[in-house]
Amino acid sequence: MKRLFAALLLLSSLAIAHAQERVEKWGVYEVVLKGADAGNPFIDLELGATFTQGSESYAPEGFYDGDGTYRIRFMPPSAGQWRWVTRSNHPDLDGKKGAFVAVEGKNKGPVRVANVHHFAHADGTPFRPFGTTIYEWAFQPEAKKRQTLETLRKTAFNKARMLAVPPYKPYYLSGATRLTDFPFVGSSRADFDFSRFNPVYFRNLERDVQRLSDLGIQVDLILFRPYDKGQWGFDTTSDAVNQRFVRYMVARFAAYQNIWWSMANENSYIKHLGDEDFDRYFQIVQKHDPYGHLRSIHNADRIYDYNKPWVTHVSLQYYNAVKVFGVSPLLRDIYRKPIVHDEINYEGNSASRWGELSGEELTRRFWIALTGGAYATHGEILDNGWIGGGGYLAGASPERIAFLRTIVEAGPKEGLKPIDQLFVMNTAGKAGEYYLMYFGDERPSEWRFELPVGELRSGMQFKVDVIDTWNMTITPVAGTFSIGELTRYRVADQDKRSVALPGKPYMALRIQRVGAMPAGPRAPVPGAVADD
Amino acid sequence: MKRLFAALLLLSSLAIAHAQERVEKWGVYEVVLKGADAGNPFIDLELGATFTQGSESYAPEGFYDGDGTYRIRFMPPSAGQWRWVTRSNHPDLDGKKGAFVAVEGKNKGPVRVANVHHFAHADGTPFRPFGTTIYEWAFQPEAKKRQTLETLRKTAFNKARMLAVPPYKPYYLSGATRLTDFPFVGSSRADFDFSRFNPVYFRNLERDVQRLSDLGIQVDLILFRPYDKGQWGFDTTSDAVNQRFVRYMVARFAAYQNIWWSMANENSYIKHLGDEDFDRYFQIVQKHDPYGHLRSIHNADRIYDYNKPWVTHVSLQYYNAVKVFGVSPLLRDIYRKPIVHDEINYEGNSASRWGELSGEELTRRFWIALTGGAYATHGEILDNGWIGGGGYLAGASPERIAFLRTIVEAGPKEGLKPIDQLFVMNTAGKAGEYYLMYFGDERPSEWRFELPVGELRSGMQFKVDVIDTWNMTITPVAGTFSIGELTRYRVADQDKRSVALPGKPYMALRIQRVGAMPAGPRAPVPGAVADD
Repeated sequence: MKRLFAALLLLSSLAIAHAQERVEKWGVYEVVLKGADAGNPFIDLELGATFTQGSESYAPEGFYDGDGTYRIRFMPPSAGQWRWVTRSNHPDLDGKKGAFVAVEGKNKGPVRVANVHHFAHADGTPFRPFGTTIYEWAFQPEAKKRQTLETLRKTAFNKARMLAVPPYKPYYLSGATRLTDFPFVGSSRADFDFSRFNPVYFRNLERDVQRLSDLGIQVDLILFRPYDKGQWGFDTTSDAVNQRFVRYMVARFAAYQNIWWSMANENSYIKHLGDEDFDRYFQIVQKHDPYGHLRSIHNADRIYDYNKPWVTHVSLQYYNAVKVFGVSPLLRDIYRKPIVHDEINYEGNSASRWGELSGEELTRRFWIALTGGAYATHGEILDNGWIGGGGYLAGASPERIAFLRTIVEAGPKEGLKPIDQLFVMNTAGKAGEYYLMYFGDERPSEWRFELPVGELRSGMQFKVDVIDTWNMTITPVAGTFSIGELTRYRVADQDKRSVALPGKPYMALRIQRVGAMPAGPRAPVPGAVADD
Repeated sequence: MKRLFAALLLLSSLAIAHAQERVEKWGVYEVVLKGADAGNPFIDLELGATFTQGSESYAPEGFYDGDGTYRIRFMPPSAGQWRWVTRSNHPDLDGKKGAFVAVEGKNKGPVRVANVHHFAHADGTPFRPFGTTIYEWAFQPEAKKRQTLETLRKTAFNKARMLAVPPYKPYYLSGATRLTDFPFVGSSRADFDFSRFNPVYFRNLERDVQRLSDLGIQVDLILFRPYDKGQWGFDTTSDAVNQRFVRYMVARFAAYQNIWWSMANENSYIKHLGDEDFDRYFQIVQKHDPYGHLRSIHNADRIYDYNKPWVTHVSLQYYNAVKVFGVSPLLRDIYRKPIVHDEINYEGNSASRWGELSGEELTRRFWIALTGGAYATHGEILDNGWIGGGGYLAGASPERIAFLRTIVEAGPKEGLKPIDQLFVMNTAGKAGEYYLMYFGDERPSEWRFELPVGELRSGMQFKVDVIDTWNMTITPVAGTFSIGELTRYRVADQDKRSVALPGKPYMALRIQRVGAMPAGPRAPVPGAVADD
C-alpha cells in the first residue's frame, strides 16, 4: 500500500483540493486542503467528505494537520471510480469536489469477525491472530524501531498491541530516549495544551502503523492507558478532551487497513474513567469509523461487558483462562464473539510474577488457547524488555508459536472449534474432518484412538500425526484408523488401535480424515448438555 | 409461616372481601373475593390491590382461582398495620378495602443478593445455597412426596430446583403415577384449553412450595422447560399464553417467601423460544413481582446474557467450570453477580454421561465451586432417580456436601472471596483473616505455610486445620503460624514451617487468624494483573 497525496494548490487562504488519480483498494487516499489557521481548528472545525461510487457511500471525518493543512482520509473498499465532496463549517473547506480511481492491488483489507469466533480480511482471507506486545516501540529512537521491525520480519507475529500515547517513564525525559513530541502541544505537564493536538506526534505514529502494515502486521492500537504515574496528565484529561482525542484518532487512523481499536489497556487502572465512559468512546469510534475496524478493550480487575453491541471481540487479561483447559470454550459461549487472550503473562525473567514464564509455559498457554477455539498474544520481558520498547527477542516461545501458527493455518479454514466441549476439554477442529488435541503437561505414553461421535460415519478413515509442540516435529503414524461401530458418545478405531506417545509433556495429535467418504448419515452431535 | 385466609362472605354475585386480622411478617396474606364466573376471567380480568403502610406501598396482581373465587396475595415485608384497596375492571371486585396487622415472627424473608456475589435473607441472615435438584417431585403421588420431604429434612440442602410444569413422561399417563391435573384445563393434547388455567393444579403446587418453605428450603421454580417430546404442547404455547402464564405464576407464588424465579431449564432446548422471548418474560416477572425475588435462567447450549439488568444471579450449566480450578473467579468478574453452578453433572450410575459421577467427583466439584467464591447444586441419578421424582437419596455426596456447608457457614459472614485469584487458584476466604484452600485430586504430603501478602501484617498469628473433605474430619495443626517479613507476593511462616498432609486426595486447609492484631499497616493487595 502506498500513500498518495492529493496535489496541493495554494491560493491565498482559499482552500483548493486536487485529487490524486489512483490508489489501491484498501489503500489510503487523502484529500489535502489548505485553509486559514485562525482560532483553534482542533476544536472549532467540522470537516469531512462523502466518497461515493454508485450506491456505495462513506463519510469519514477530516482533521487538522497543522500549518493550515487539512486532510480527509479514505480507505476505498471497492475498486472503481470514487467521487468525493467535502463538507465543513469553514466556507473555504466546504463543497470541494474531486474523483479518483481505486485499483485492485495486493491489499487484503481490514480484518473483520468471521464465522462468529474467528477473523478474516475484507477479501475473505482468514486471519488468525498470533499477536505480540510492544507497547512502547513507537516511542523509541529510530534505530531501535528499525531493529524491532527487523525482528518482527523474522517472526510469525501478525498483530502488535501498542500504545497510542506513551506511558510516563523517566527515561523519556532525557538522553537518547528523550521524547520531543507528545500527543498534545507542549513538552511537560506544566505546559501541555490539551486543546491542541501535536500533528508531528501523530505523523510519526502513522509512519509506524504503516511500517507494520507493510509487514502484514495488524495494529491493536490502544487509545487510553493508565501508567501516567501522576506526571503528564494524559490519563486525567476531561471527557471533552477524550472525545476529541478519539475522533482525532479515528480521523487520522481509520483509513489504515491494519488498525484495530483497543479502547484501553488495563481499563480499571485508569481511575479517572469508568466503563460508562468507555461506552461513550466506543460509540464515537463506531459512529465515525466508516469501515468498522475491530473494537475491543483490555481489562485489569474490572472486566468490561464484552456483550455490549459495539464490542467486536474479547480482548481479555485473565491468566487462569489459559492455565487450565476448558475456559475458552466457555468464553466463546458466553460472548459469541472471537476470544483473544491478549495478556497471558510473559516469557521472562522479571521480578514481577506476571513476567516470569518459561518458554515452555507460554507456549503451553498458547496451545490451550488455540485448542479451546480462541487466540492468544505473546509478550517477552527478558533482559531486553521487548514488551516495552521492542528491539530483539531472546525467548524460546516465538519459534514455537510460529510452528503452532503453521499448524493452525493448515487446519480448517473456518477456524478451530471446540469439539464435544463439555466432556472433552483438549480438542478443537472440525468434527468429522479434523481434530487437534493437546496434552499439555500430561505425559501419556499412548492414546487410544477414540473420537467424539458427532459427525462421524462408520468406515471413515483418519490419519494421525504426533506433534511435539516443543521440539516442533510432526511425525505421521503409520497407516490409517477406521471408525468402527458408532456408539453413543465416543467411537474407537474398529480394531481398538492406539497411538504410541513418547511420555513427554507438550505433545499434541492431529487427526485428519482421509480417503473416500463412506455412505450413510453422519452421527448427530450429542446434546452438549443433559437433554435426555 | 401460617397461611391465613380472609373471611369469606358470599352475597349473591357481589364480591365482598374481609381481611383476616393478623399475619406474620413475610407470611402470605390473602384477600379473597367472590364474583361472577362469566366470560373467561383468566383472560378478561384485571385485578390487584394496593397494600399500604405509611410510605410503603405494594401493588400485587390478583388471580382467578376458579368457582367464582378471586384472590390477591401479599407478603408483608414490615410488621405493623397494612391497609389495602382493590382495583379491577370488574366493578364487583373494584374498590374493596380492608386492613390487617403483620406481626414479627420467625420468617427470615426472601433471599436477595448480598455483597455482590452472595445471598442473604431480607432480615440480613446470610443464605448460602447448597441446592439439590428434584425436577418432578411435585408431580409424584403423595406418599412419594412425603418420602422426599422426609429425605430433605435429614439433608443439608436448602434450595430445590423444580419444574412448575411437568415434563412429558409415559408414566404420567397411567397407573399410580397418572397425572389428573395439568396447568391448563384438560388432560391431553387433544383437549388442553390454553386459555384456561387449572386452579387445582396450582393449589397442589403451592402446597408443595409451602412444605419446602416449612423445611427452610428455597424453591428455584422453573417456569419454562423443554422435555415435552411433542406431546402436550406445553413448550409450544403462544407468546400470549406464555405471558399470561408468567403473570399467573407471579400472582399466585410471589407472596411465598422462598420463591426464586428460574425462567427456564436448558433454555435453548425450548426451540420455540429465543432469548428475546425470555427477555420479555423476565421483565414481566420483574414488573409484577412486588418483592423482587431472585431471577435467573438455566442454559443448555446457548448461554443467556446474565449481564442483563433483570438477571439477579447466574444459574449456569457448564461442567468445565467446576472440573478445573479458577473458573468461578472469572465468572464472578465477568458478571459481578452471584454464581450458582446449577448443574454440574450428577452422582449416579446412569448410562447418560451427565449422570455417572462418583460421590467423590461430585463433592470435588462442590469444593472447587465454593473455593472459587461460587455455589453449586447437587443432583443424583442412582437407581432411585432422585433428580426426577425425589424419594430417597442413596449417594455418598449429600453427607459431604452437608459437611462442606457447616464449614462454609462457620466462615466469614460476607461469604468466600477468591484470594489473589489470578495467581492462586484454589483459595477463597477473607484476606488477612480466613483462608479455605482445597487441593482436589492432588495428594500433597506437605504444604509450606505461605499466604498471599494482601491484608497481612508481620507478626499475625494463624491456626491451621487440616480438613479431609471425604472422611469429614477436621484436624487442628498443633501451634500457630506467624507471619514473617512481608514480601512482594507471598509470605511464609517466620520459621518457614510446613503443614504435614497425608498424601491423599480431597484434602483442604482452613487457616484462621488468632490472637492479638499486631500493630502496623496491612499489606496492600498486589494488583491482580500487571500494573507495574
